[in-house]
Amino acid sequence: MAGETLHVHFLGTAGALPAPQRNPSCIMIRRGSDSILFDCGEGAQQQMMRARTGFGVDAIFVTHWHADHFLGIFGLVESLSFMGRTDEPLHIYGPDWVHEFINVLRTVARHNVRFPIHGHTLGHGDVVPFPGFTVRAFATRHGITSLGYVLEEDERPGKFDREQAIALGVPPGPLFGRLQRGETVRIVRDGTEVEILPTDVMGELRPGRKVVYTGDTRPMQRESGAAGLMADADLLIHDATFDDEDAARAAEVLHSTAGEAGEAAETLNARMLALVHLSSRYTSTANHIRDAKKRYKGEIIAPADLSVLEIPYRS
Amino acid sequence: MAGETLHVHFLGTAGALPAPQRNPSCIMIRRGSDSILFDCGEGAQQQMMRARTGFGVDAIFVTHWHADHFLGIFGLVESLSFMGRTDEPLHIYGPDWVHEFINVLRTVARHNVRFPIHGHTLGHGDVVPFPGFTVRAFATRHGITSLGYVLEEDERPGKFDREQAIALGVPPGPLFGRLQRGETVRIVRDGTEVEILPTDVMGELRPGRKVVYTGDTRPMQRESGAAGLMADADLLIHDATFDDEDAARAAEVLHSTAGEAGEAAETLNARMLALVHLSSRYTSTANHIRDAKKRYKGEIIAPADLSVLEIPYRS
Repeated sequence: MAGETLHVHFLGTAGALPAPQRNPSCIMIRRGSDSILFDCGEGAQQQMMRARTGFGVDAIFVTHWHADHFLGIFGLVESLSFMGRTDEPLHIYGPDWVHEFINVLRTVARHNVRFPIHGHTLGHGDVVPFPGFTVRAFATRHGITSLGYVLEEDERPGKFDREQAIALGVPPGPLFGRLQRGETVRIVRDGTEVEILPTDVMGELRPGRKVVYTGDTRPMQRESGAAGLMADADLLIHDATFDDEDAARAAEVLHSTAGEAGEAAETLNARMLALVHLSSRYTSTANHIRDAKKRYKGEIIAPADLSVLEIPYRS
Repeated sequence: MAGETLHVHFLGTAGALPAPQRNPSCIMIRRGSDSILFDCGEGAQQQMMRARTGFGVDAIFVTHWHADHFLGIFGLVESLSFMGRTDEPLHIYGPDWVHEFINVLRTVARHNVRFPIHGHTLGHGDVVPFPGFTVRAFATRHGITSLGYVLEEDERPGKFDREQAIALGVPPGPLFGRLQRGETVRIVRDGTEVEILPTDVMGELRPGRKVVYTGDTRPMQRESGAAGLMADADLLIHDATFDDEDAARAAEVLHSTAGEAGEAAETLNARMLALVHLSSRYTSTANHIRDAKKRYKGEIIAPADLSVLEIPYRS
């Protein structure tokens, strides 16, 4: 079973103030034909054009209502209408104020919106199901009500043991596929009809892939409520507004340093770490990478805008 | 007298739908140390960074309240606050709904705005004075209440006739400057004190420079109310959403074609024509330039985003 592709598009990696080459916060995750956004900063629609991601966004998850995390929704909604979206609803999820935001959105876009927009308030632990995956919210620490998000795929079937199937007398062909899809099949072996169960030929269920996005926050890996939800991610996308030289500033304004992000990735057993929300005061990401490396042994990236990662299955 | 520099920055030249390399509508005019915006589409603040125009915007003139003409105000206001603007007020001018917009702006930017924002409703013929120039509104035709704007400098003093001044007995030096600034001076000539008036040595007042921006509109050069205000511009920045092959569509959605913009420039005696608000359906500006050239003999540009024009004095 090939499974679905899972791509993470870094559409906006700037801090509160954008930079000429970094847009405000926006991460698109595309899984098969589903697209969701984590935050949607100003200019997100143009970044989607530049990254050629298409515009089939089903849901937007806003981490918190600071403007650099949501201003792009206005233009995206306008352009979706302009491009002819009429029936397909758009769901906007976020902490308190989501319905006030939807009211503002309707006021601003009053001339044009032609498809349903639904707002949903989320709190810590809330889960939103999609076909094949879920998005779960966890509370973060940023001075106003704020959430991080965990995208986690459903468990995958175990590996199909082809040799075992043949040994049990199942002929290669359509019956293999039925067993892989979880169906019991009947075969004739030595003149007797016997039943072959999927569990006879399939390995244990395998975990799906997991992507964690913190939004803006102080480090969360010591917080008992969040740590379990955040653990064992294939990709941890973490606030790294500052490098470690500006640790005092990070604590003061409730962001994280790159070193703190590295420590989080190590503690949470993340497979890969992406440093985002980089302050425009830095012209290079070298210090960020250096500081994260001191505390985390896995792979670290500080992605440029429009870069894209394909997340592979672990097994 | 050298006068002030006058620069027009094309920060956003796209139609309603942005393109990867064209932002929504935004024109910055910088005269000396003053900066004003005509429209402020999404991403304007980032275009200002890319064009290195600085952020000292005194006033924003919105042509109409379709979202591609004003969404950038949200992010600009956030970033101005973030960069420490506290006392200097920002004035936002536009047709009806400007105060409703200011309310929306305050709601969206509730966490951050630290300087005064004043909204002003403008109608046809209204004039806003600045030091050395004015901005005047004229009604346009776009289906909702909409305005175009005329930036016009105050008249300049006439040319100083240096030879005439010397012939009248004025010694080269500080008295020249006083005469140029409009002061009457006294000299001793042939043993007699005589008065030299500025008009003795200065030519006639010379017109200032004039830039006209139509915003989104059907052609206006035949409309008696607007034609006089729009005439004799050094630069006419005209809606040219479509090329002439799409003339029917232009009439239907109340925009202009490039040929219509050319006809307007010819009729209005513009010195130069800039075609803007280009629909994303076109990948080249060649047809636009061709169509405008058929009807206008002056210089025509279809500026790329971030291009800048310096407007010279005529004499």
